[in-house]
Amino acid sequence: MTSKKIGILGSGMVGLGLGSKFIELGHSVMIGSRTENNEKSAEWKKGQSDLAHIGTFEQTAQFGDLLFIATKGEVTLDVVKMAGIENLSNKILIDISNPLDFSKGFPPHLIPEFQNKTSLGEEIQKIAPDCKVIKTLNTVNVSIMTDPNQLESQPTMFICGNDESATKEVEELLKSFGWNDIIILGDITNSRALEALLPLWIRLAKHYGMPKFGFKIVK
Amino acid sequence: MTSKKIGILGSGMVGLGLGSKFIELGHSVMIGSRTENNEKSAEWKKGQSDLAHIGTFEQTAQFGDLLFIATKGEVTLDVVKMAGIENLSNKILIDISNPLDFSKGFPPHLIPEFQNKTSLGEEIQKIAPDCKVIKTLNTVNVSIMTDPNQLESQPTMFICGNDESATKEVEELLKSFGWNDIIILGDITNSRALEALLPLWIRLAKHYGMPKFGFKIVK
Repeated sequence: MTSKKIGILGSGMVGLGLGSKFIELGHSVMIGSRTENNEKSAEWKKGQSDLAHIGTFEQTAQFGDLLFIATKGEVTLDVVKMAGIENLSNKILIDISNPLDFSKGFPPHLIPEFQNKTSLGEEIQKIAPDCKVIKTLNTVNVSIMTDPNQLESQPTMFICGNDESATKEVEELLKSFGWNDIIILGDITNSRALEALLPLWIRLAKHYGMPKFGFKIVK
Repeated sequence: MTSKKIGILGSGMVGLGLGSKFIELGHSVMIGSRTENNEKSAEWKKGQSDLAHIGTFEQTAQFGDLLFIATKGEVTLDVVKMAGIENLSNKILIDISNPLDFSKGFPPHLIPEFQNKTSLGEEIQKIAPDCKVIKTLNTVNVSIMTDPNQLESQPTMFICGNDESATKEVEELLKSFGWNDIIILGDITNSRALEALLPLWIRLAKHYGMPKFGFKIVK
């Protein structure tokens, strides 16, 4: 993949982990937060080359040719709005967030307004109709997202989105991470089936006492 | 496994397929339907040895030492009631049904009252508190349920239920079918995570144009 400007909305473990990997691969990265000088992002930037940048959600959306959203599901739509719907126009936004509600303790359920007959991926697409929203990578831990070959066998990675060429572009990106067991499911409504894996994912993470596993389709 | 009397509530493809397999393994089987002389069950019985029986849901629940429910999710609770709650007391009931709503076309969503914060498995347990409800096998096609080694690699099979010794007994049953990649998740509330796999299962069945695949956990 040629060098890109990548904007990552969200400065949690997932956002920063992805950012580090993209920099390693030679891309420029901006990590976006609510404020320009988010502490965790600033700390992360110190350990990186000059390909690393930090900024607000809005600056990050403007900076990136390719965007990720990696926030907690409960704030995903707010963050998309803060990024500026106009800044997402015609860009690919890869949504790796999950609508988990931890407010009632463990295990979390899915946030009712983002599941079964809809999903976070679909709701982002609704508020940002000119953005090419792609759902993928939400079914594995951040470490596996960018290094799928560390397990006994590579999990299956699913991609969905309304724009076919955007889907293909994201497939190429995943291949650059080493993914080769990839299924393109179709439009963004498939997002509801992918986010629905999380209740089992969460329980398995507890069962194993660790997050490094994945779902592989065997046939 | 020593020879058992197995009652299967539901005379669809799944119920009859399971019934045939159990007879092959030397168990006595009764297939239960709404009426005593359900046409499909009667047809099925013709092709079987004298280990095969058919009856009403109630007769079937009385007949079986080990029970299965293999109906469409939308009628599961009604069938449990027709079987007679008192007939389920202290028996293991393996719930392989899924709460899919096909009324809005393809792909189906999960029936809202049986998902996310609850599940079919849990709702059966609620109306039949003295029954040992176990959720398993709902994530694979009937052909794979009883012959898991026909794929490139065996899928992972999940079991959950409130009664620990019942869970172990079902694990032994699955082993008699050839299952060896089995995860016991815990109590029946885990059923909601297992039923939540169906939206993806349905889409993959369409993607592949066939139902013979499964989810394997790789770690």
